[in-house]
Amino acid sequence: MMIDQTSVKLKNELHDLIEWLAAFGKTRNGGVTRLLYDAAWQEAQLGLKDKMKEMGLVTRFDDVGNLFGRVQGRGEETRVILTGSHVDTVVDGGKYDGAFGVLASTIAVSRLLHHYGVPQRTIEVVSLCEEEGSRFPLSFWGSGNITGNYQIEKADSLFDRSGVSLAEAMQAVGFGKGNYPQPARKDIACFLETHIEQGQTLELEQKTWAPVSDIVGQRRYTISLTGESNHAGTTPMNRRRDAVFAASVMIAHVMQEARNQTNGLVATTGRVEAEPNVPNVISGKCCFSLDVRHHELAVMDDFCEQALAFCKETADKAGIQIQIDKWMDVSPVKLDPELTQMNLKTAEDAGIPFRKMVSGAGHDSQIFGTYCPTALMFVPSHLGISHSPAEYTKLADLEVGVRMLMKVLYQLAY
Amino acid sequence: MMIDQTSVKLKNELHDLIEWLAAFGKTRNGGVTRLLYDAAWQEAQLGLKDKMKEMGLVTRFDDVGNLFGRVQGRGEETRVILTGSHVDTVVDGGKYDGAFGVLASTIAVSRLLHHYGVPQRTIEVVSLCEEEGSRFPLSFWGSGNITGNYQIEKADSLFDRSGVSLAEAMQAVGFGKGNYPQPARKDIACFLETHIEQGQTLELEQKTWAPVSDIVGQRRYTISLTGESNHAGTTPMNRRRDAVFAASVMIAHVMQEARNQTNGLVATTGRVEAEPNVPNVISGKCCFSLDVRHHELAVMDDFCEQALAFCKETADKAGIQIQIDKWMDVSPVKLDPELTQMNLKTAEDAGIPFRKMVSGAGHDSQIFGTYCPTALMFVPSHLGISHSPAEYTKLADLEVGVRMLMKVLYQLAY
Repeated sequence: MMIDQTSVKLKNELHDLIEWLAAFGKTRNGGVTRLLYDAAWQEAQLGLKDKMKEMGLVTRFDDVGNLFGRVQGRGEETRVILTGSHVDTVVDGGKYDGAFGVLASTIAVSRLLHHYGVPQRTIEVVSLCEEEGSRFPLSFWGSGNITGNYQIEKADSLFDRSGVSLAEAMQAVGFGKGNYPQPARKDIACFLETHIEQGQTLELEQKTWAPVSDIVGQRRYTISLTGESNHAGTTPMNRRRDAVFAASVMIAHVMQEARNQTNGLVATTGRVEAEPNVPNVISGKCCFSLDVRHHELAVMDDFCEQALAFCKETADKAGIQIQIDKWMDVSPVKLDPELTQMNLKTAEDAGIPFRKMVSGAGHDSQIFGTYCPTALMFVPSHLGISHSPAEYTKLADLEVGVRMLMKVLYQLAY
Repeated sequence: MMIDQTSVKLKNELHDLIEWLAAFGKTRNGGVTRLLYDAAWQEAQLGLKDKMKEMGLVTRFDDVGNLFGRVQGRGEETRVILTGSHVDTVVDGGKYDGAFGVLASTIAVSRLLHHYGVPQRTIEVVSLCEEEGSRFPLSFWGSGNITGNYQIEKADSLFDRSGVSLAEAMQAVGFGKGNYPQPARKDIACFLETHIEQGQTLELEQKTWAPVSDIVGQRRYTISLTGESNHAGTTPMNRRRDAVFAASVMIAHVMQEARNQTNGLVATTGRVEAEPNVPNVISGKCCFSLDVRHHELAVMDDFCEQALAFCKETADKAGIQIQIDKWMDVSPVKLDPELTQMNLKTAEDAGIPFRKMVSGAGHDSQIFGTYCPTALMFVPSHLGISHSPAEYTKLADLEVGVRMLMKVLYQLAY
């Protein structure tokens, strides 16, 4: 396969499209805020629809606002090769998270079409309506509806912080009324997602491309301790039931245990709250979060079991009540080994510095991954920064992403 | 010495006076809020002035609002035996903290006067204007002015949360204008303070009276850690600079070290703040308080030095910046050994269950303790609760406090 465009021309096209899309919902910090069904989101999806059309794709929305740009194949296979990512962002997020995968897919498909004509198989680019969970208390609304994990009726019972229901928000921008086809699909052969890494591994290892073999599972807990609030001067050490002390012992131990693992497991306590939280009073209460991730269920199970057993034992010894609330439990997802292998081989053949990796973040690919053969592919994130206006990937790396996606699509569709 | 009043009569008198004083600034929770120079404070001091006068004492204010009730001795000794405590409270505090010492002194002196006539030596009861530090950013305003540790000019530069200066607040209730004698005194022979324990030691050991040999020194620090905020899923454990993890290691170690001491040292981390304090982000910042108390300077020095060295070492190893801010440093105060000894002997002779103790909380006695021979004496606090509407000491224990104070005053003044 040969791409006769110059690198400069592709870089310019990428740059212009990324800046163009980032203008929908641009924040004063130079970031982007596009929340599901808000005005910036609507303008971005309508703008993308026009852009896809200009670039030779046949566009349509589904009834939850997922946007598709289709190139009908000339062969007999009716199932679709789907490629894309999501268009929504976190509050004051970056220009690349989600957006890059949508734009890379659009550019790749239009270039393939331009250079090689109508493909054998049908390709659709998708700009998924929602992945981040930034407005309503759910995430993956786009991929979840396509794959049948969500039903549109769920939209009546979920509300944003202003009390607007998901159904109302959807209807306000023209969706959710049956004016468009229902989102659930049975005709998807495979899903490809190109995304920024959101970590620093590729940059530190000077790689520019990473086929992802697995997406981690995640468990999130809130651990609440109740001891006894008391005077910091008049309560002897041996008569204390100090919730902050107990929490510190637990966090220190669990984080150290996670560091001792050499299997890629990560554990994080990002949130700690003490009560009454004043210097001269022993804390009667302390709660903290525990986030554990790994791509193998058994490893995650073992770690969580041991960590929580340690916490319970520590609480018991200290005469402290412990309550453990598991509020997130997502299983690991293995992406399609054949697609991953094809991706690896393609990078090797192209002489691109690459590595296989595990994704520590969640992606639409984990929803598609249990529904159809799915490939997720990363380009580097500078300094690993993401969900921030400072999110950045250099154009040369983005260009590699588009070119690799073209090669993969070419192999699948032509 | 004989006290011919019945126990019931004294209990009733105590009960009535405590309830009467608690009515000035009574809160809806059944607690008391009397802040320096507020309306409840002013009414309480004026009420106490009338009460002292009724009970045979000659009253006067000084220019910061300390109230004195004097019984002039018939001997030649001009120096005064001062007995009392403070009239101000914390916000929604209890009925006993400070108030009991003022009322116990008033009752004791009036009873001695009634039964034994004019003493050989002059006694003054004092209702100190401020000890708690609840309104302005200072504490011990009453005892500090008497002993020359504070000058009245300081009042211009201190403001409460509404922006009212200490000078304005003082003048609004008639003080600070030179209408009363200046507070600094050179004529105090000794100071006696009767107080609730604010801890549970006496109750647990079934003792009712404790001469206090020492008041602990206190050091308070804020320890601020700066690591690196990062994605909880995509940052491998070995590339983290996690401020919450580092803080947990420090707190767990320092608290455990304090527990390992068997010398009465106490250390407390009551306040912990993480940033950004969300479950799925590694904390870039964490700060926590450290409060260390002991009655021997060398023990406190050693402990703090080792604790802070451990914190610095831990931070260095974790690649985390550490800033240590010492914002309180109060030396331990040894109370007068002769008075303490006399107190112990008096309790022993009276057959009162007693123990010598160290005070882990601060008191006006620590200000007087470096200025004149000082004795501090505790009665039990039920469950050790203090600075709360639930503060409680049973009448039988309060009665012991008054009777013991009478015995001590009798020995000193008659």
